[in-house]
Parts: sequence; C-alpha cells; structure tokens
Amino acid sequence: MNTNKGLNLTMLFDFYEMTMANGYFLHGYKDRVTYYDLFFRRVPDGGGFAIAAGLEQVIDYINELHFDEADIDYLRGRGMFSEDFLDYLRNFKFTGDVWAVPEGTPVFPKEPLITVRAPAIQAQLLETYLLLATNHQSLIATKANRICRAAKGRAVMEFGARRAQGGDGAMLGARAAYIGGCIGTATTISDQLFGVKALGTMAHAWVQIFDNELDAFRAYCKTYPANATLLVDTYNTLKSGVPNAIRAFNEILKPLGIRKCGIRLDSGDIAYLSRKARQMLDEAGWTECTITASNSLDEYLIRDLDEQGARIDAYGVGERMITARSEPVFGSVYKLVAVENADGSITPKIKISENVEKITVPHYKKLWRFYGNSTGKAIADYMTLHDETVDDSRNLRIFDPENTWKAKEVYDFTARELQVPIFQGGRQVYQCPPLDQVRSYCAQQVDTLWDDVKRFDNPHKYYVDLSQKLWDLRQDLLQSKP
Amino acid sequence: MNTNKGLNLTMLFDFYEMTMANGYFLHGYKDRVTYYDLFFRRVPDGGGFAIAAGLEQVIDYINELHFDEADIDYLRGRGMFSEDFLDYLRNFKFTGDVWAVPEGTPVFPKEPLITVRAPAIQAQLLETYLLLATNHQSLIATKANRICRAAKGRAVMEFGARRAQGGDGAMLGARAAYIGGCIGTATTISDQLFGVKALGTMAHAWVQIFDNELDAFRAYCKTYPANATLLVDTYNTLKSGVPNAIRAFNEILKPLGIRKCGIRLDSGDIAYLSRKARQMLDEAGWTECTITASNSLDEYLIRDLDEQGARIDAYGVGERMITARSEPVFGSVYKLVAVENADGSITPKIKISENVEKITVPHYKKLWRFYGNSTGKAIADYMTLHDETVDDSRNLRIFDPENTWKAKEVYDFTARELQVPIFQGGRQVYQCPPLDQVRSYCAQQVDTLWDDVKRFDNPHKYYVDLSQKLWDLRQDLLQSKP
Repeated sequence: MNTNKGLNLTMLFDFYEMTMANGYFLHGYKDRVTYYDLFFRRVPDGGGFAIAAGLEQVIDYINELHFDEADIDYLRGRGMFSEDFLDYLRNFKFTGDVWAVPEGTPVFPKEPLITVRAPAIQAQLLETYLLLATNHQSLIATKANRICRAAKGRAVMEFGARRAQGGDGAMLGARAAYIGGCIGTATTISDQLFGVKALGTMAHAWVQIFDNELDAFRAYCKTYPANATLLVDTYNTLKSGVPNAIRAFNEILKPLGIRKCGIRLDSGDIAYLSRKARQMLDEAGWTECTITASNSLDEYLIRDLDEQGARIDAYGVGERMITARSEPVFGSVYKLVAVENADGSITPKIKISENVEKITVPHYKKLWRFYGNSTGKAIADYMTLHDETVDDSRNLRIFDPENTWKAKEVYDFTARELQVPIFQGGRQVYQCPPLDQVRSYCAQQVDTLWDDVKRFDNPHKYYVDLSQKLWDLRQDLLQSKP
Repeated sequence: MNTNKGLNLTMLFDFYEMTMANGYFLHGYKDRVTYYDLFFRRVPDGGGFAIAAGLEQVIDYINELHFDEADIDYLRGRGMFSEDFLDYLRNFKFTGDVWAVPEGTPVFPKEPLITVRAPAIQAQLLETYLLLATNHQSLIATKANRICRAAKGRAVMEFGARRAQGGDGAMLGARAAYIGGCIGTATTISDQLFGVKALGTMAHAWVQIFDNELDAFRAYCKTYPANATLLVDTYNTLKSGVPNAIRAFNEILKPLGIRKCGIRLDSGDIAYLSRKARQMLDEAGWTECTITASNSLDEYLIRDLDEQGARIDAYGVGERMITARSEPVFGSVYKLVAVENADGSITPKIKISENVEKITVPHYKKLWRFYGNSTGKAIADYMTLHDETVDDSRNLRIFDPENTWKAKEVYDFTARELQVPIFQGGRQVYQCPPLDQVRSYCAQQVDTLWDDVKRFDNPHKYYVDLSQKLWDLRQDLLQSKP
C-alpha cells in the first residue's frame, strides 16, 4: 500500500535543491557520488531520547520519485534551467543506497537516522522530503511516547485531527502517535490507510440535537449497546450528565446483561469530577463503566491528575499531542558528510560552524548500540567509520567526544548495528514491518533504556560516542579547515 | 484546480462523526436541518486579531465529498453501522448552504467564520475537515502576518518545508503564509499548485561539494548571473564568505554589467555580521547586493534585529512560521447553534459550560463589520439574528455582551456583512479569488485596523458585540437551561 495515497510528491522540494541540481549537472557533478547523514541536534521538550518515525513514507516517496511533463513544463517556465537538465529529469530515478534506523527505535542527538549514498543530484533532491517526513513523525511519536508513559499503562487515544497542521498532520500524526504508544485515533482515514484503530462515540451536538440529554443517551445506548461511552458534560456533569448516563445504562444496557460501558469528561475539574463520577457509578452498580478524560491533556497534566487521585481509565489527547504543542519542531538536518572520488576512495566532508554544537560528524559511518548482557539495557551508542567493526567479545574503552577525559570501559555487552539497508542501487531491499509490530518494537526498545534517560525533565545524557579513528579524523578536519 | 490534489478526503473525519451520523439516521434525524457555526475563542500569541484562511480547501473538500466502495467496505467491517445507512452513504452528497468570511479577512474571537445549514448528517460530517483546514491555515496566515508586520515592508520568504508537520503542512502552510504577507516560498509544489512564487538559491552542500568556496561561488554566478544569492557562512562569514562572494561578483557579474546580486547569512550574530557585510559590499562597490538573513527568525527576533541596526533586506523564515512555533494551535470549534423544525421555524441551541467563555452565541446569525466613514478604520464587529439588518444611516448604540454597561454610540459608519454565500443547496456559488488578490485584500483589510489592535503583546480588545435581540435571546436560553 502506498501510504502517500498515490500522490506524487516529487515536486515537494525546496526550490534551491533544483537550482543546485541544475548547477551540479552543468558543472560536471551530476554523477559525483555523495554521502549525506540525516540527524537531529536536540530532543524536543528537553527529553532524553526521541522515537524515530516516518521511514515508511520516505520509502514510498523514493519509490514514487519521477517528474511528469507538467513538472518539466513548470520548471522550464522558470527560465533558469537548461534543456539538457530538464531532459535528464524526464528520466530521473533514484539509483542510490539508503540506510536507516527502523521506525520505533529510540534515538539520540547527532546519530545518523538516515544515510544516503547517491549521485549528487539525486541525494540533493531527497533533502526536503526526507527531513519533512522524519521530522514530523519523529516529533509526534516522541511526544506520544512521553504522554503514554505519563499514563502508566492506561489507554491513550489520539483525538487531535481538528487541530492538526493540515491533513497529513492529522493522518500521519495519528500513525506516529500509534508508534509512540497510543491505542488508536479519532482519525478514521488513518485506520483505513495504516490500521490505526479508529475510535470515538459522540460529540456535544449529539446531546443537543435531541430534546433532552436523557433521550440522547437512551438513543445512543440503543444504537451501540456494546460501545456506549456517553459524553456527560453538555449541561452539568454531576447534576445531569452522570445521573442521566446511569439511568440510560439501567434502562437499556442492564436488561441486555451488558456491564461494560463508559462516560467521557471533557471540561471542568477532571480530578474532582472523575472521583465523584466514579463514586456515583459504583454506587449504582456500574463498576465496569470506564471514565475517559479529554480536555487539553498532555504528559504533565496526566501526571498531575494521577497524583491528585483522579479516577481515569483512558485519556483522549488532542491538540497538545497532534501538534506537539509544547515544542512543535523536530530539528533534523541533512548534511553532506563525504564525497566519492573517481578511484572509489572517499573524501570526508565537514560543516564548520561558529556554534560548536553545529559542527557535523564527517564521513560515511556506522552506528552501533551496546546492550548490557546481564541487564538487557542500552549502555551507549557508538559511531565508527564505515569500515570499522566492533568486537563485543572484549572490553571497549569509550570516551565523550567533547570532554575526552570522561571515559568508560564497556564490558559484557552486545553491539547491534542500528541502521539497516533500505535501498541498494535504487532497489528497495527493506520491507516495512506492520505498524502493530513497529509499535511493540518501540515499547520494547524504550524498555531497554534506564529510567534516568526517561525522565521528562533534565534526564541523564545518554552516551553517543565516536570511535578513536572517527574522532581523530574529525579533529584533523577541524584543524585543516579551508 | 483542485487544491487538494484530487485526493478524496471524505474519510478524514473523526470516527464519532460517523457513529453520530448512523445514529441520526436510525433515530429520524437524517433530514433534520441543523445550523453550525465555526468560530475560535482566542487569538494565538495573545495577538489582537487573526487572519481567516483555508476556505478554498474547504470548498474543494465539500465538492469532492463522496464515499466509494472501499470506504463503505471499511465502514461495514467495523460492524457498527446499519446497511440502510451504508446505502445512504453510497449516494451521499452535500445539499446544504454554507456562508463564510472570505480568506484574508482579519477576524476576532467568537465570530462565525463559517456557518453551515444542512441536514444533520451532512452538517455533522463536515466538522473535522472544516476545522482542520480553517485552523491550520488561519494559524499560519496569522503568524505570517505578525512576522511580515515586524519586517516593516521588507520581504519575508517562507522557508519552512523541512520542519513542517507533514506535506500539507508545508504546501498549504506556504499558501497561508503568502496570504499573510510573505512574498514567496521555498516549497516548489506550492508555486505549481497555488502560484506562490518559489524562491531559493543554494545550501551549504553546494559550497562543500566544490573544492573550495570561491569555486562554488564562481560556478553559481556563472550559472545564475541574474539570480546570484550566495550563502556565505559555510566556513567563516567575514573572513572567507563575504570576500569570496565579492571576488566572484567582480569576476563574473561585473563584466556582464550586472549590479543586482545577494548574499545570505544563516548563522552567527546576524546584527553584527549584516552590518559588517554591508560595509564590505559597499566598499567593494556592490551597493545593490542585498543581504538576506535566515536563522530561526520570528516577529520578535526580526524586531530586535531591526532595533539593533541590522542591515537586512530580506528575511527567510522557517520553522517558527511554518509550525507557528510559539503557539502552534488555532482553536476553532464547530458548534450546533440552531435546529430547524418541520414548519420551517428555527429553534436556537446553546452549549452551556462551567467555563463562561465557552458558552456559545446561539442561533442562525449575521456578522457585520462597521467602518468609520471619515477614517476608513474598522470600529466594531456586530452579530445579529439572521433576519435583522443594520441601518448604517443612523447612529447605533452597541454594548459589551459581558459588561453591558460598557456602551458606545457608533455614528457616520458603513456596515458591511462579513460572511458571503459559498454553497446554496449544495451548489458552489462563490468563486475563490486568485491568491494574489486574497493577499492584497488581506493587507488592505489589516490596514483598516487601528494600531492598538495590531500590537504584538497586550493589544486593545476589538469590539465584537451582539444586537439587543441576540443578547436577549442568549440570556433567555441561559436562564432556561435544561
């Protein structure tokens, strides 16, 4: 299934990709093989890790890449591009290699989430969409994972479509939220496209359109006896909503022998209202009636509600998850790290910056994660040159790349390469796992992180170190900068 | 042109729209005519007004509404919907009326941006997408307008695709940013689809791929002599970037008699670097060389740079505009305001809430804006019942709906109805103006606002008042709540 819905997104690039591409073409760089890394510099919300997501859309995009005649005409109309180049675009297809960290993997700053090896024009043109897809879905998956962890195993439903930043924001946001741990979404099309279970029962309009609240509740219970979650705050939650819900449950569900039902609180003091509602439901014998809350929730409010003894079984989370409201930008960048020469040798490239943290890690690399054999926990990530290997049968000394005196001996560990091949010579060699599997892989991998990395605020900084060879190479390039 | 790119977004609804729709169908409400208002409650960033946008996508969506067999099959698979209802969906089309405030209009809290009159199921199903499209584009248009006002007439370019929340976030975000005042975008497909001029020259990769910066600049000037804006911060802005740019301009552009060119600053202290760069360019005779800045800008930073004497001619604004980073949610809601009875009479509906500011303004209404005849400035907005008119040939007493003692006499004014008919009986009766026209209409309408409404922080609260009849009706409904 094409998760971009058959839409050709080839023209979704920053215009400068095309001015550069035409320039590479004219200056003999068309077939120059280049290496790019896609990585981010900091975790949103000051968190300790992010969740990688968006790879399936990246794959669909690369497979669909092509320029049709309308695209060529548009470009010709700009009066900047040579006819030879436009001709070249007519037969454009991706022929390069791509490696990536699978979706659902917890990832850390400076690590290459995606590495591209391709002729200059091809690698350049991928920039915008690879960043867009990765930034968007990693942002939402990371935020959803925080919110789901705050919910401590209680169900979190994604309810944000109406406040999403565009249709893809809603559809793919629901997908990413599911990877991060949500149990489903309100966005129906995301169920159709990705199998993220669509959920929902009623809005206030349902209650208002009937002559009164009780009739509205009765009608709903009759229509959906197996799925009756009633919204109880249209008029007055405790004086009218909950009593009417109980009455409707008694009249309609009880005779059918149904014990499972629900109410939803969408305004007011949720901690207080949920405790009171729980008491009223229990006293009426509706102990299996669940209480869902859904008013401007996020990880902090969920944690607060929990601490205040709220009696909530499930959370519906909207705008604060679907836009990652507290920090709505995931800042991945896509940087040239090496260029291949005619003889096959590789020249590493570095991007210097006056901001030290913006200096890149050069060269074609490998990314490893070390897991402790006795704990199963992740100890450190480790970047090496592409032709290095890690021998995890012996102890390894690793050190902080900025403060090199901070060193550590790693022992009794298993090294796992985090990137897997996605495209080889333009052919897709990776099959995306079903989304359910991505979601459980994510949960399982988050479990390999120590709690101190998982704190919402001020988490422990996980080690992302460089091999000695890679560190030395970077130092050399920094000292010999042009 | 279908700006949703031919994509059928019918299934992009919150699942509860469908459970309610099936319920309306089964309980005899299918053809019950309902009235809904789409409105927002507060302006993002504490601003004084918002810019309405997204209507063209709403129109496309309504015109495309239909369920195909795959959609019906999916819904049947959920095991919740009656076959009669699924049959009804098979022939579903919108037959109602829609009124809306044109795109580009400055709007204020509580005003109906869109009003829908349609059979219950139809009006209900529109909810999610109408909110999504309006919220997203109004959010970005409003933010872009703030940023463009901070730039005081200097060009602002939208550069945010890579950090946008999904493809639509980029494509439609660029459209909305243009309405708000940007001169163009980096997102090429938005030029193709909407005519938002695509702009851009080079990234750091261009400079890195050549053997040295000077060669990269020379090559670019040779390829695009009429459009040579060189990115000067890859290695060192003042020691290497600007001198090499000047040398390339001298070597390539000067002999061609070209005086117009540019440099772009993307890191470091932009205020200082731009002043120094300006001096170096001027001393070298490149007085017509423009300086573009593009590093994490927004309205506050642009104002600061301006106050610090930065010499910037154009701004490229990325993530902080395309995600409206400082407040990434536009909170429109869609509320039932009236129900039509069999005899054609209309019963107003109100949504009560324990949060007073969440109580709706009931009934089928009209929205007016009063302009002072001598100043051309907007004085107040005014909501009336649908069958009221405003006689602007005589003075009118208006009053604050919360603090009714705050009254004011309006005189020598022209009343203009803000909503225009969009659909009548399911037929589109409104032609969207070209986007350029929407953009200039927006600028012209923002000019009708007094400066105190346009302050970034703590602006004057613009009057949005109710007619006496509407106010009385609302009081009656509040007092007789069920």
